[in-house]
Amino acid sequence: MTTKFLDKVKVPADRYEMRLSGSGGQGMIFGSVVLSKAIGIGGDAKNVVQSQTYGPEARGGASKADVVVSANEIYYPKAMKLDFLLAMTQEALDTYYGQLKPDGILLVDTGLVTEFPTKNYYGMELTRMARNDVGHIMVANVIALGAIAAITGLVSKERLTEVVLEHAPRGTEDKNRKAVDLGYAEALKFKK
Amino acid sequence: MTTKFLDKVKVPADRYEMRLSGSGGQGMIFGSVVLSKAIGIGGDAKNVVQSQTYGPEARGGASKADVVVSANEIYYPKAMKLDFLLAMTQEALDTYYGQLKPDGILLVDTGLVTEFPTKNYYGMELTRMARNDVGHIMVANVIALGAIAAITGLVSKERLTEVVLEHAPRGTEDKNRKAVDLGYAEALKFKK
Repeated sequence: MTTKFLDKVKVPADRYEMRLSGSGGQGMIFGSVVLSKAIGIGGDAKNVVQSQTYGPEARGGASKADVVVSANEIYYPKAMKLDFLLAMTQEALDTYYGQLKPDGILLVDTGLVTEFPTKNYYGMELTRMARNDVGHIMVANVIALGAIAAITGLVSKERLTEVVLEHAPRGTEDKNRKAVDLGYAEALKFKK
Repeated sequence: MTTKFLDKVKVPADRYEMRLSGSGGQGMIFGSVVLSKAIGIGGDAKNVVQSQTYGPEARGGASKADVVVSANEIYYPKAMKLDFLLAMTQEALDTYYGQLKPDGILLVDTGLVTEFPTKNYYGMELTRMARNDVGHIMVANVIALGAIAAITGLVSKERLTEVVLEHAPRGTEDKNRKAVDLGYAEALKFKK
């Protein structure tokens, strides 16, 4: 596993492209909407476009949702060369790894992915953590968001938590807060 | 109110641009995600890109989510000149009406909007119908989806219902099914 860790991703004036990918039902769209809102309405004057594609143009069975961040207006909202890729399944990794830049950051659910095209990745057992440590498999995506906040520094843990709770179904607040905390803390360990 | 009614929107080879707008909490993103998936994975070989923008680039306090449909690959996923606009609030209408094409279709929640820049619109009391006829104010967006299916013909009521139910919280299936039916039936009345 990589030891490379960016203290804080510098949001480029041009663009920073992220993709959250997995299978349908893993909440990649929910995660991307929340992440985009947290980054974009966080007060740092970042523009964010969040998008997903359906139909024959969308490749394969993997589900993906894209987030493009820029300090400037975003004229072209599609992600092309990824600066960050979350892969929650083997199929998602195999489908989208080719679009990751050579120095791009890869975060993988190592409980579900077994074959790696690179040694340069951050591995966390996101789904196992959701089930065993939080008690609800559906928050694996929120654990990933916590990790993304820690790894990229694009949004604070507090701001992310706020937006997660705004959008989470009533009654799931505690589990979601715990999921953000867990993902954030676990990812910080990569720094040591 | 307009008497113009397109029997079935011809999906152009180039693009058909739709915007769902309202205030935060009215479920415009949820509605757009569901609509996009229903249109894009409906079997008619349509490509659909769904997107939202956050940050200083996003104008005003109105919440919007865009859907671009095309028979071809969509190179530019941002909506620029709208073919269809749903406005759930006065602010949303005032903010986005200027982007509607002269022959574009406007659907308005006439329970919440009181001032109209045009006589050419479809008016439905979406929020009132959700509260009084379905018993849950949160399905106003789903009633709108049913109406959009009827007005544009871009997706069948059955396919739309299927995707709504896939994404609706457990236990809300009946209300959501009823919401689609209601919006669809109500919009069909414009045809008479």
